[in-house]
Amino acid sequence: MAVTEIIDVRTTTRAETIDITSLVRAAVKRSGIDDGIAVVFCKHTTAGLTIQENNDPAVKAALIAHLAQAVPHGAGAVSAATNADAHVKSSLIGASLALVVEAGKPVLGTWQAIYFCEFDGPRNRQLLVKVVG
Amino acid sequence: MAVTEIIDVRTTTRAETIDITSLVRAAVKRSGIDDGIAVVFCKHTTAGLTIQENNDPAVKAALIAHLAQAVPHGAGAVSAATNADAHVKSSLIGASLALVVEAGKPVLGTWQAIYFCEFDGPRNRQLLVKVVG
Amino acid sequence: MAVTEIIDVRTTTRAETIDITSLVRAAVKRSGIDDGIAVVFCKHTTAGLTIQENNDPAVKAALIAHLAQAVPHGAGAVSAATNADAHVKSSLIGASLALVVEAGKPVLGTWQAIYFCEFDGPRNRQLLVKVVG
Repeated sequence: MAVTEIIDVRTTTRAETIDITSLVRAAVKRSGIDDGIAVVFCKHTTAGLTIQENNDPAVKAALIAHLAQAVPHGAGAVSAATNADAHVKSSLIGASLALVVEAGKPVLGTWQAIYFCEFDGPRNRQLLVKVVG
Repeated sequence: MAVTEIIDVRTTTRAETIDITSLVRAAVKRSGIDDGIAVVFCKHTTAGLTIQENNDPAVKAALIAHLAQAVPHGAGAVSAATNADAHVKSSLIGASLALVVEAGKPVLGTWQAIYFCEFDGPRNRQLLVKVVG
Repeated sequence: MAVTEIIDVRTTTRAETIDITSLVRAAVKRSGIDDGIAVVFCKHTTAGLTIQENNDPAVKAALIAHLAQAVPHGAGAVSAATNADAHVKSSLIGASLALVVEAGKPVLGTWQAIYFCEFDGPRNRQLLVKVVG
């Protein structure tokens, strides 16, 4: 029935956003469900998932820069654990996305892409995609 | 089966929250599914969706004011794109909501309303509502 | 069919995170659905839900401390309502979580737990869990 699809992501720096739209699209297609709801789920507490612009690299940079400024690495209130900033960023961005599926595809706006957000890399990460119809 | 409903929203200022509860309720009812899960999805990367208080206008103002202060328009780290602040706010608030549906209605707490959050208006915006049972 | 399960939570301080993983697991089991998607929904606008680390208490403390610093209680832009900070924190963290369900259980990473986030306690709170397969 509702099979869970797995997406593996390899990150290469401490904090970055990686466009996973084509990987999510392929996972939804593999599920064989044409019409329904998909959940993309991040199994890690120092990373997250967001939907952002698919075109201007300045937007991705702005998101990482804002979070670095708002939740500094190793500073002040969040210094108790060395990577506490990454955990806080994960809770601010969120670990799961709920998407609409139509004609076997996740529906996105013209300028939208799905991004995996790494906050404590480089690491090997695993995401789940589940579709119900 | 699981039809996708469309909600059109017209915003009138750069940053505002618009109560879309009655529009979402009508969309869920049109879906014909009495019991299940609904996803409300925003097709834009400079806007978002949140659940907030339905009564005190000071709460809506506080959310917009906090975000304006935390992610200033055109300042510092987020100046690379002129509306980069709106993109960052969109990722902080989120582009989709997952709701519980019972008796043909999205279940909300006594004080909850569903808000569309505009961060780069005024614009015409489109939301999707999908229900599975 | 898709029954809605209720979880009651009693908080004891103004701002805290409470591990509700076992409560969500029990609710998913009670639903009788082995495979699908679960939504955990918070019926309050001064609280939220997040997924965070299940081990190091410093991480929970860092999240509360960051939010206290970023959205001060009773200060500046958010002073219009006395608990406006709690409302803003609720929108930043979010009121619902979408989870993947397999073999009758919500799937979590090794280090993940599900937390209820109280921002204006102590109070009695109610959460909903809905599973569709």
